Amino acid sequence: MTAMIKRRPIAVTMGDPAGVGPEVAARAWAERHKHDLPPFVTVGDAAVIEAVWDGPVVRVNDMDEAGRLFDTALPVWHLEDSGPLTPGEPTAAGATCALHALETGIGLTRNGAAAALVTGPVSKHALQSIGYTHPGQTEFIAERCGVTATNAVMMLAGPGLRVVPLTVHIPLAEVPERLTAELIVAKARIVVRGLIRDFGISQPRLAMAGLNPHAGESGRLGDEEIRIIAPAIEQLAAEGIVVDGPLAADALFAPGIRDRYDALFCGYHDQALAPFKALHFHDGVNLTLGLPIIRTSPDHGTAFNIAGSGTADPGPTIAAIAMAARMAGARARGCAAAA
Amino acid sequence: MTAMIKRRPIAVTMGDPAGVGPEVAARAWAERHKHDLPPFVTVGDAAVIEAVWDGPVVRVNDMDEAGRLFDTALPVWHLEDSGPLTPGEPTAAGATCALHALETGIGLTRNGAAAALVTGPVSKHALQSIGYTHPGQTEFIAERCGVTATNAVMMLAGPGLRVVPLTVHIPLAEVPERLTAELIVAKARIVVRGLIRDFGISQPRLAMAGLNPHAGESGRLGDEEIRIIAPAIEQLAAEGIVVDGPLAADALFAPGIRDRYDALFCGYHDQALAPFKALHFHDGVNLTLGLPIIRTSPDHGTAFNIAGSGTADPGPTIAAIAMAARMAGARARGCAAAA
Repeated sequence: MTAMIKRRPIAVTMGDPAGVGPEVAARAWAERHKHDLPPFVTVGDAAVIEAVWDGPVVRVNDMDEAGRLFDTALPVWHLEDSGPLTPGEPTAAGATCALHALETGIGLTRNGAAAALVTGPVSKHALQSIGYTHPGQTEFIAERCGVTATNAVMMLAGPGLRVVPLTVHIPLAEVPERLTAELIVAKARIVVRGLIRDFGISQPRLAMAGLNPHAGESGRLGDEEIRIIAPAIEQLAAEGIVVDGPLAADALFAPGIRDRYDALFCGYHDQALAPFKALHFHDGVNLTLGLPIIRTSPDHGTAFNIAGSGTADPGPTIAAIAMAARMAGARARGCAAAA
Repeated sequence: MTAMIKRRPIAVTMGDPAGVGPEVAARAWAERHKHDLPPFVTVGDAAVIEAVWDGPVVRVNDMDEAGRLFDTALPVWHLEDSGPLTPGEPTAAGATCALHALETGIGLTRNGAAAALVTGPVSKHALQSIGYTHPGQTEFIAERCGVTATNAVMMLAGPGLRVVPLTVHIPLAEVPERLTAELIVAKARIVVRGLIRDFGISQPRLAMAGLNPHAGESGRLGDEEIRIIAPAIEQLAAEGIVVDGPLAADALFAPGIRDRYDALFCGYHDQALAPFKALHFHDGVNLTLGLPIIRTSPDHGTAFNIAGSGTADPGPTIAAIAMAARMAGARARGCAAAA
């Protein structure tokens, strides 16, 4: 059955042409055999890749053709000339190209031509200069997919660890008021569906960290565990979801504990990402659950300070492509089994 | 010069007699050769150790004698019979013995008979039942050493990483108001002195994490970095202290970044301890800087649920004893050099 599933290429957006996105995509292609990567297409400006990389590039505008040519050259879905460019120096034309690549990548994935979307790093600042008003790429992708941004859930995933920050890019002082039982329940449901559909885990096991140190010590160090987190866990358990907590965040990340769960939920950005990056800096992938499409991304920025120097690590992009491929495979097998 | 420094034993308090403290101290002794541990004396109730451990025990009331006998038996500074006891079931008599052991351990270290103090795990709840009002052992030790509790600074140290949480056991919601530039400056000064005196690092390099995600993104995600942390860093730099920041906490803990610093300062408990324990669960040591004595402790609790079963890992206690010995050595070398 699985052999019949056609292996469609993955769309990899280049991100900001002045950042490291173009070179890491090209170098991921160069390491395609070493990492057994599936066919992928870079979406953006082919001239930018040719300027920072010596390998073979082929311009394509058809995904089947891209799949056929992938083994001999890096296929680039060429959109436009983003103008004269110096690596490390973002321009308005470059930001326009990055946005165009994102739109095209979403479209190719939404219409089924691409199996998944991997987004390269963009500059928020450069995008804002051309009138982009979304806080990040995720919100834009959600909107284009007809999903409200609150239903697009950020997950960081490494080989042996998945974490979900329940709140993300807000000041720490606002976290206690923004964390609600409704938010926890809604995000946990989305994550459970994602783990089942895109990771092939039939009965996901979740853990919820406490918001306060030592998970509040029975209310002595804060009451959010009692007022918010425990009721959310109770609700989820009533729905048949396997979830432990609230657990002290530091103990939860200890080896032997973290390994018991398919996803660890944390109250806020650093509670999730500091331990995650301590463990999976080079092979961690940022992905979005709750979308109709599969979307992953390398968990780093444009790195303008090293762009063009050839020193950027393609590891995170390789990990993002490989994970997108595994997720697409799991989803396809699920669909085939249900058919 | 260093050969002339007498190697005094280390005082290791047993902690709550119903917890894992007695057995991990005994098993640390059993592994003394494997880990090249210096002489140490367990302070508490010898009968409790004999009840959970089959090895040789010798009761001592003289530190020189303890040092001479250490190679053949576990020296126990026997205080009192803590009464009938079932492992895992704390009693008032046991809590009294734990408190007495702490007082004795502090006394032996303060008067120079012991080179350092390693404190075993106690039960806050059991101690409170006998009228103990300090939040933890550290505050009690500070008081007995004539140091205000705010000047006793908690550090977690592993083989390649040291972290300092600037606030500790308070609700997350209170962290933003409790973090002040004065607090940061005061704690950083104490840590710098400790790194010089007890770790032999002549010019310590510090890093300060931001309080907010991405260190606040220039004020867009919170302004504590601008209002509080940056001015503190400026003050410390003016005093000649090498300190970077504020840095995004998740990036700070990445390999290659965390290794650049001798200590990472975090705004609150989980920001420091979640990544620390993810990396150093089995060999992390909790220590207190700013005291006249050297004090370390294994970074775990009484573990009543497994006490007496012989399964508790002695690794953290071994690490705490070994680190106390290294710190005592560094301090003695510094004193000898200054003499």
